[in-house]
Amino acid sequence: MGKTIKIGIVGYGNLGKGVRQAIGQNPDMELAAVFTRREPAGLQAGENVRFEAFSAIESYIGNIDVMILCGGSATDLPEQTPHIARWFHTVDSFDTHAKIPEFFETVDAAAWQGGKLSIISTGWDPGLFSLNRLLAEAILPEGKEYTFWGKGVSQGHSDAIRRIPGVKAGVQYTVPVPEAIERIRSGETPDLQTREKHSRHCYVVAEDGADKERIREAIVTMPNYFADYDTTVTFVSEEELKAEHGGMPHGGFVIRSGTTGSGTKQRIEFGLTLGSNPEFTASVLVACARAGFRLGEQGAVGARTIFDLPLGLLSPKSPEQLRRELL
Amino acid sequence: MGKTIKIGIVGYGNLGKGVRQAIGQNPDMELAAVFTRREPAGLQAGENVRFEAFSAIESYIGNIDVMILCGGSATDLPEQTPHIARWFHTVDSFDTHAKIPEFFETVDAAAWQGGKLSIISTGWDPGLFSLNRLLAEAILPEGKEYTFWGKGVSQGHSDAIRRIPGVKAGVQYTVPVPEAIERIRSGETPDLQTREKHSRHCYVVAEDGADKERIREAIVTMPNYFADYDTTVTFVSEEELKAEHGGMPHGGFVIRSGTTGSGTKQRIEFGLTLGSNPEFTASVLVACARAGFRLGEQGAVGARTIFDLPLGLLSPKSPEQLRRELL
Repeated sequence: MGKTIKIGIVGYGNLGKGVRQAIGQNPDMELAAVFTRREPAGLQAGENVRFEAFSAIESYIGNIDVMILCGGSATDLPEQTPHIARWFHTVDSFDTHAKIPEFFETVDAAAWQGGKLSIISTGWDPGLFSLNRLLAEAILPEGKEYTFWGKGVSQGHSDAIRRIPGVKAGVQYTVPVPEAIERIRSGETPDLQTREKHSRHCYVVAEDGADKERIREAIVTMPNYFADYDTTVTFVSEEELKAEHGGMPHGGFVIRSGTTGSGTKQRIEFGLTLGSNPEFTASVLVACARAGFRLGEQGAVGARTIFDLPLGLLSPKSPEQLRRELL
Repeated sequence: MGKTIKIGIVGYGNLGKGVRQAIGQNPDMELAAVFTRREPAGLQAGENVRFEAFSAIESYIGNIDVMILCGGSATDLPEQTPHIARWFHTVDSFDTHAKIPEFFETVDAAAWQGGKLSIISTGWDPGLFSLNRLLAEAILPEGKEYTFWGKGVSQGHSDAIRRIPGVKAGVQYTVPVPEAIERIRSGETPDLQTREKHSRHCYVVAEDGADKERIREAIVTMPNYFADYDTTVTFVSEEELKAEHGGMPHGGFVIRSGTTGSGTKQRIEFGLTLGSNPEFTASVLVACARAGFRLGEQGAVGARTIFDLPLGLLSPKSPEQLRRELL
C-alpha cells in the first residue's frame, strides 16, 4: 500500500457528512480537514475532525491531496470548483445537466493553471447511470434506452410542495411505473410519455384549518412539476411525516434493449436501491477521489468525467490483484 | 469522424460470426478479412467477406488495425493471442479464470515486442460482470457480492451430458434460484451454498432403447458438474430439442449489498438478459476493439483488461458529445 491519501471536504451538509463517513470505510484515506461556511468553532466541540473556514483552504496547499466538493450545483460548485481546482485535485457532483459542457471548460482551464486534476459531475446520476448509458449504447448501438428514477425523494419537488400556501411540510417521492418497466423487460421498446414512466406521490402536512382540497388541486395541477404526471397527495400528521418519510432513499434503473445479428434481443440493466442518496453519492465521490489522486500522481492534468477514468483506479487493489480476484 | 477502423477476425465459429454482424452495426469500422483454419475457398462462395488462411495473417500487417481473436480459451487463444499480438492490436475473450494472470504476462510481453496494444479477457464474464464487481466493491467496501449466471446454456455442462452412454444429444441450462435473488434484493446478505444459488436443467435426447433412468442417475450424480446442484432431467425428442433448445441464451446478475454511514443499506445491481451469448460477447469485443485502436493510436503499448480502459473510448462519440448527451 502506498501513502495515505489526504482528503479535504468542502461543505458540510448531508453530502459532506456522507463523505466523512465513507472515508472511514477506506483505510487508504484520511480526512485532513472539513471546510465550512459556518463558524468552525461551533462545529468543533466534541468532534475528532478538524473544521476550518473556507478562507483557510489555500493554507492547506501541499497538505491535502484531493478536495471533495460537497456544495450544491446551483450556486456553490460553479464558484467553488474553479476556485479550488487551481490548488488541489478535486472531485465534485455538479449535476445541472445543461451546464455541464460550460462547467467542464471552466474547471479544465482552472486545473491546467495549477497543474491539477479535477473529476467533475460524478455520483450516480450523473455518474454511474451515465457510465451505464454509455456502455450499453456502445455495445448495443441498435437499441433503445430508458432511465427510471426512484422510488426516491426529490428535493426540488418537495420544495415546490412546501411553497404552496397552507402547507406546513411535505415530501415527494418519484416512483417508476411498474407496468413500463415490465414492458421493457419483456422485450418491448415502447415510446413512453412522461406520465407512463413515473408517478409522483406526495405526503403533506397541512397547516391547521387549511383547505386540503385546494392544496391537493394546487399540487396536482402545478406545471412542470406535477401536471404531466399521475400524482397522489396524502395528508399526514407532522409526527407521521417525520417517522415515516424522514429518510432520503433513492435509486432507479438504466435499461437498454437492443438487437444484434438478425434481430436477436439483448438487454442490459443497471439498478440502484439506495437507503440514503447522499451517503451513496458520497461513496462514489470518495472512490473517484482515489482515481483522481492516482491519475494526478501519474501527471494527468485538467478536467475529467467518469467517462475518462480507467475504473481499476477506483479500487484500492493493485492491477495484479484486480485481475486475479475480480476479472 | 476519423478514419475507419480496419478489423480482422481470427476464427469463424459462433463468436467470429457475431463479430462480423456487430461490425455491420458500427459505421466507423470495416471488416478487412476473416482468418480461418478451414479452407478459405470453401467459405468464400457467395460471401462478400474476404476469407484467408491463418498463414496469411502476417501479410496483413499495416492493413488491419485490430485483430479480434474469436478462438476458444482452452487451446486456441493461449497460442494465438501472443503470436498475433506482436503484429497487431488485439482483443480477445480469454476466460480460463485461473490462468488469466499468466496469460496477461505472456500477451503483455508479446505486445511490447511489436509496440502494440492487446485487450484480453473481455466480453461479459469476464468483462462487464468483472467491471461491475470492481465498481460495486470500490464504492461499497463494506458489503457482500453475488454473481448469478443464467438462465443460460452452459456448453461445458451440455458436453458432459453428451458424453454419457445412451445420450444422443442434450442441452443444459444453468438457472439462478429465484428465492436466493429475492433474499438478496430484500436486503439480506446470506452465505449461500452452491445448491442454493443455481439449479441445473437438462434436456436430453436418448438413443433408441437406452435406459433413461440410468442416464438420469448418471447425470444427477456426476461430480463437479451436477452432484452439488438440484438437477432436473427432461427427455425430449430430437425435433423438440432442435426447435425449443437450439438457441444460445444466457445472462445473469452481479448484485452487491452494502452499507454506508451507520448501517444504511445500499444495493447495486447489474444484469444481462441475452438472446444470444456469442452475439452479445461479440458486440462487447467490437466496442473494445474501438477502445484498443484509440489507445494504440495514443501510443499505449502492452496488455490491458477492461479495468484499464476509460469507458468513453468504447463509444464512437467524441468526449464533448458524450458529456453533452450521456453524462
